[in-house]
Amino acid sequence: MEFQYETSATIKTKIQERPVAILPVGAVEAHGAHLPLATDNILADQMSKKLAEKSPAMVLPTLPFGQVWSLKDFPGSLTVSNESLISMLVDIGESLYRQGFKMFVMMNGHLGNAVALKEAARVLYDKHPTLKVFYFFYPGMKETVPQIRESISPHSNYFHACEIETSYMLYLAKEFVDMNKAIDDMPTIPDTADVTPTPWQDFTTTAVLGDATLATEEKGRFVIEHSLDIMANLVAAALNEKEEN
Amino acid sequence: MEFQYETSATIKTKIQERPVAILPVGAVEAHGAHLPLATDNILADQMSKKLAEKSPAMVLPTLPFGQVWSLKDFPGSLTVSNESLISMLVDIGESLYRQGFKMFVMMNGHLGNAVALKEAARVLYDKHPTLKVFYFFYPGMKETVPQIRESISPHSNYFHACEIETSYMLYLAKEFVDMNKAIDDMPTIPDTADVTPTPWQDFTTTAVLGDATLATEEKGRFVIEHSLDIMANLVAAALNEKEEN
Amino acid sequence: MEFQYETSATIKTKIQERPVAILPVGAVEAHGAHLPLATDNILADQMSKKLAEKSPAMVLPTLPFGQVWSLKDFPGSLTVSNESLISMLVDIGESLYRQGFKMFVMMNGHLGNAVALKEAARVLYDKHPTLKVFYFFYPGMKETVPQIRESISPHSNYFHACEIETSYMLYLAKEFVDMNKAIDDMPTIPDTADVTPTPWQDFTTTAVLGDATLATEEKGRFVIEHSLDIMANLVAAALNEKEEN
Amino acid sequence: MEFQYETSATIKTKIQERPVAILPVGAVEAHGAHLPLATDNILADQMSKKLAEKSPAMVLPTLPFGQVWSLKDFPGSLTVSNESLISMLVDIGESLYRQGFKMFVMMNGHLGNAVALKEAARVLYDKHPTLKVFYFFYPGMKETVPQIRESISPHSNYFHACEIETSYMLYLAKEFVDMNKAIDDMPTIPDTADVTPTPWQDFTTTAVLGDATLATEEKGRFVIEHSLDIMANLVAAALNEKEEN
Amino acid sequence: MEFQYETSATIKTKIQERPVAILPVGAVEAHGAHLPLATDNILADQMSKKLAEKSPAMVLPTLPFGQVWSLKDFPGSLTVSNESLISMLVDIGESLYRQGFKMFVMMNGHLGNAVALKEAARVLYDKHPTLKVFYFFYPGMKETVPQIRESISPHSNYFHACEIETSYMLYLAKEFVDMNKAIDDMPTIPDTADVTPTPWQDFTTTAVLGDATLATEEKGRFVIEHSLDIMANLVAAALNEKEEN
Amino acid sequence: MEFQYETSATIKTKIQERPVAILPVGAVEAHGAHLPLATDNILADQMSKKLAEKSPAMVLPTLPFGQVWSLKDFPGSLTVSNESLISMLVDIGESLYRQGFKMFVMMNGHLGNAVALKEAARVLYDKHPTLKVFYFFYPGMKETVPQIRESISPHSNYFHACEIETSYMLYLAKEFVDMNKAIDDMPTIPDTADVTPTPWQDFTTTAVLGDATLATEEKGRFVIEHSLDIMANLVAAALNEKEEN
Repeated sequence: MEFQYETSATIKTKIQERPVAILPVGAVEAHGAHLPLATDNILADQMSKKLAEKSPAMVLPTLPFGQVWSLKDFPGSLTVSNESLISMLVDIGESLYRQGFKMFVMMNGHLGNAVALKEAARVLYDKHPTLKVFYFFYPGMKETVPQIRESISPHSNYFHACEIETSYMLYLAKEFVDMNKAIDDMPTIPDTADVTPTPWQDFTTTAVLGDATLATEEKGRFVIEHSLDIMANLVAAALNEKEEN
Repeated sequence: MEFQYETSATIKTKIQERPVAILPVGAVEAHGAHLPLATDNILADQMSKKLAEKSPAMVLPTLPFGQVWSLKDFPGSLTVSNESLISMLVDIGESLYRQGFKMFVMMNGHLGNAVALKEAARVLYDKHPTLKVFYFFYPGMKETVPQIRESISPHSNYFHACEIETSYMLYLAKEFVDMNKAIDDMPTIPDTADVTPTPWQDFTTTAVLGDATLATEEKGRFVIEHSLDIMANLVAAALNEKEEN
Repeated sequence: MEFQYETSATIKTKIQERPVAILPVGAVEAHGAHLPLATDNILADQMSKKLAEKSPAMVLPTLPFGQVWSLKDFPGSLTVSNESLISMLVDIGESLYRQGFKMFVMMNGHLGNAVALKEAARVLYDKHPTLKVFYFFYPGMKETVPQIRESISPHSNYFHACEIETSYMLYLAKEFVDMNKAIDDMPTIPDTADVTPTPWQDFTTTAVLGDATLATEEKGRFVIEHSLDIMANLVAAALNEKEEN
Repeated sequence: MEFQYETSATIKTKIQERPVAILPVGAVEAHGAHLPLATDNILADQMSKKLAEKSPAMVLPTLPFGQVWSLKDFPGSLTVSNESLISMLVDIGESLYRQGFKMFVMMNGHLGNAVALKEAARVLYDKHPTLKVFYFFYPGMKETVPQIRESISPHSNYFHACEIETSYMLYLAKEFVDMNKAIDDMPTIPDTADVTPTPWQDFTTTAVLGDATLATEEKGRFVIEHSLDIMANLVAAALNEKEEN
Repeated sequence: MEFQYETSATIKTKIQERPVAILPVGAVEAHGAHLPLATDNILADQMSKKLAEKSPAMVLPTLPFGQVWSLKDFPGSLTVSNESLISMLVDIGESLYRQGFKMFVMMNGHLGNAVALKEAARVLYDKHPTLKVFYFFYPGMKETVPQIRESISPHSNYFHACEIETSYMLYLAKEFVDMNKAIDDMPTIPDTADVTPTPWQDFTTTAVLGDATLATEEKGRFVIEHSLDIMANLVAAALNEKEEN
Repeated sequence: MEFQYETSATIKTKIQERPVAILPVGAVEAHGAHLPLATDNILADQMSKKLAEKSPAMVLPTLPFGQVWSLKDFPGSLTVSNESLISMLVDIGESLYRQGFKMFVMMNGHLGNAVALKEAARVLYDKHPTLKVFYFFYPGMKETVPQIRESISPHSNYFHACEIETSYMLYLAKEFVDMNKAIDDMPTIPDTADVTPTPWQDFTTTAVLGDATLATEEKGRFVIEHSLDIMANLVAAALNEKEEN
């Protein structure tokens, strides 16, 4: 189910059988001392593989460089521009369309990529309306996270290296988490962060947005599995709709 | 030594200790029935890891989408434009520069990327002359390959899914090779291929450019190890030069 | 306080006295039968003028064309690309910087512009870090709207020509509202609207997202005045901070 | 007849009845002490409204930011690049075409915009040859102005805040003119101004190019009404031609 | 005095002695039956060489492809976009600046290039204000042409393959003119040509705008020599000004 | 056979008779003391004219500015970017296609242009697959040069102002060569020149890459005539193929 490990000899048939291409899109970004820089790549990749188990899909290799404007000055962060990202995503989408895929799922592991993914999806929609394009970033988490969260959230949209994201990692890739180094570091994010450019060094030195020590594998499983169900259902519904048309 | 599996807490020191960043750049591309679409990604990744053992370097995650104009119509090939590739490589190089790396090595596994890598390197050179940028594509192979090649080469520059590239894979990632499916399919590449746009379906149906059955792990080891030595020496020399300045 | 009605002879002094430039950014877009296509322009303009009464600011002429991808196929909608919008906003910001303004407030009346405004703000931040740039879209409304809303919201982010936006218009520009034509038309926005390109004709024929008949001037006043207070405070705080530096 | 104050419910029919869209394009630019920075916006807007009285047309909201390279260093001037302007004008033209307009009239109030308007018109012509596009900048004034001009013209093409432009304002928007501040300041524009980049501070400190004290409403009426007649006739002729085809 | 026929060994000194670089910019464009497609290239080149005799200048090789939108559908016309032209002109200007030239004269032989040349000059001015950039298109001809013209001019700005341009050719490159094929073909250029995109096939089939049979070498000499004097004086004055600074 | 010296009246027929357009593409670049800066332009132009004698072709005027990154800091070198070059070449190719040419031959006289020419050819191929596009840079010289070369080659790909290129000039344009100034200056090109940006001042002060004193007209004739035969055959074969289709 990993696209790139197939061969040219058989891939045409397999695309017909599994006409959904999932692209993990992550980033290399500071995630505190207990999580690797690769966190968003690992999450996007693991989510993609799990979704491919529930859908007639194949997983593409991870696009591991994302738009990391907010944290670009933290040690270890690498950032690419929205323009670069959009341009490459559109190219990939066009290739998938020519290869015969019916659906292109961008599995996003990094909030900073959201703008580029949505824009790329619209460009592809305008060019190839029959190619269904999804951009997923933990759908349903707004409903599930409040049910398991024990710490306060420092911001309505951001979660980063905290109880939540660390829980995702404990569920999806425990081997990359060092809970001994997890900290509780609740920042005071200024009101202005939503209305003016605000690099995160303005309010945190650790890049941990909250209490990572409260993370558990179970919390991760709860949110992630719910999110995967939503995605699998959306993919299935879109495939059905295509068949009916 | 894999950059992305480090954490923000310690990466600053590690960059000082290992100030060379190696970026594997590959492609998803048809490579016949015996090699996976991922061949160029696997080779770039393995070469990078081996070079990092010989140099004070860290390996970045693979950029797995390349410029695949010539084979873009073969099943399984995905292509991105030179513009997209150059733009992203320059962004990555600028991030590495800001993070304190002294050297940016682009380890290329796919000939079609060569133009983009060279152009990105020049852009970075003009912007940040103190960042040393290398773009490697099996340096030294012009000397070593003739010593081990048993089949005729169908073209002076191209080698693809053939005795040579398959040997590289047998040495670096044997588990991805299915020699039972290796074939001998010597194409007649028209004289015009070097002077007019020539998609490869004009001269091959298999994407195998020669006799893959002659591939051996030993041949791969011979070329690759020689190439790695060359690269390690170039990196070391450039670091010395920097220290002297 | 309207910048463009000043003259070159005195503007330099006035910029020193009122060093905040407010740019209303709206759109020409379908807003049902009871609201004009100009709704977002009118709101952005009125909000800007009211903010200029509470701050040492001048109001620029409205940029009346916005990114209207979602509603672009509705009668009367005009759309410009994110690229065009970002490019022009950055140009304007650079002009303001050269003219001596300390702060550039983009007062957004149209959600579809949010991406372009944020991106333009970041570009300006990276070029001219001493120019404070704000992008406002009814700050605080997430807290105030639930207090006055009587109808259900069909979506967590969208509000359009509904109880809420119509109330804003009743408060800010009553003369442009024809409540006789206000309707109650609650759409069922599909779950997929947040994860795949979804032009609004997929779920509404009227472009009214809810019950516009429940709109009142009082509701508008409550949300808008609260939002204006927030903005005035943010501007004042940022000016103080600048003076201290 | 102002497009943006119509509603989506009726606009489709109105476009059929008035299939000509007029876009005023102006600038925010220094115009001496007796005219506001908004002069070019006001003129473009007023001209557009008067033309809409003579033609089956609707007026779009003014695009109030123009290319102001020559005067960009004067207090109060704001400038956007030709690229930004062309890009947005093309977007607007494409929207108008999709909305069913037969004609797109760009009513220019600022000479510096001329290059962008012409280029945008050509791009639209090449894309949508059935959309008639006009770019007007006081057509006929070369014939009428010499008949009323009492002062010498300092340049064959430029007129700015002078007898001529002030007369336009006295006729079209008297309330924005302060004749007490009008001056006579004839610059010596160097021969080189037509052949090398020449910001206007090289030859004027006031931005008034001549004797504004000679301006009268009557002079303005004479030139403007003649120009409006020309435009109305051109629009009518083009509509007739369309109907015949 | 032709830059490209010098060698690298001596060019540095020669640039110091002749610090003005003249670039002929022309076009390949239909010019009737009596003039070659190369007319604008020949004129630009000859004018440049004559100016170099009067100034401490060197002539660059002709850039022979221009913006030929209006005549692009006539047999033999080749056109490049404004974008391509501007981009290349700016590159050339930057090279000249780095090579030590003090002045860059763009000698234009084709009216359609005027926009690109002026824009390129402004870009260079903003980047390198100490590099003096001129863009010349027969300066002074508005004064001299009326003195020698016998035929009516069909348009206030256009002259093409007519009495005027043919006279230029008779003076500067008689060997390329076949007066036996010169015709009198006065077009009626519609009023709209200045206000809407108007490819020239709308009003002429010959591309000759007037009476070419009236052309004489003497007329050409009169206008051209006057123009050359103006240019030589402007260049000399600008060099003096530089020395004084 | 020189396209630009034809007239619009007869060119349509001539394009039908000679449907191959040859564009010489060169550069202005340092070539030592014995060869002019124009060397690459002269060679491209002469090669084009000779090929036009062997093929039903017409020669366009030379595009005399090329990508000269490596030598851009040498006295007399002028460089344009790959972007500028690609953009203009694509424009020219599209014009040729509209004019009815069946084939577009880019005759390259400067190695640094190779990337741009190949990229432009691919863009044109993707847009207009029926337009045959060739990019030639001395085809066959890899076979012929070793037969006549007496000096060692300092690099596998580069040849510049040396025995080889000087021989080309002696054969094609002897009048531009000053053999009295020819030198023997064999540089040691570092191994890194192929893998990192390496401006040529890093290894040569003369820009002569070898022993120019060994150049002879006969050597030039041998390589060039062989190359011309190859090109003529390729053009003829491609024309035949077109006729058969």
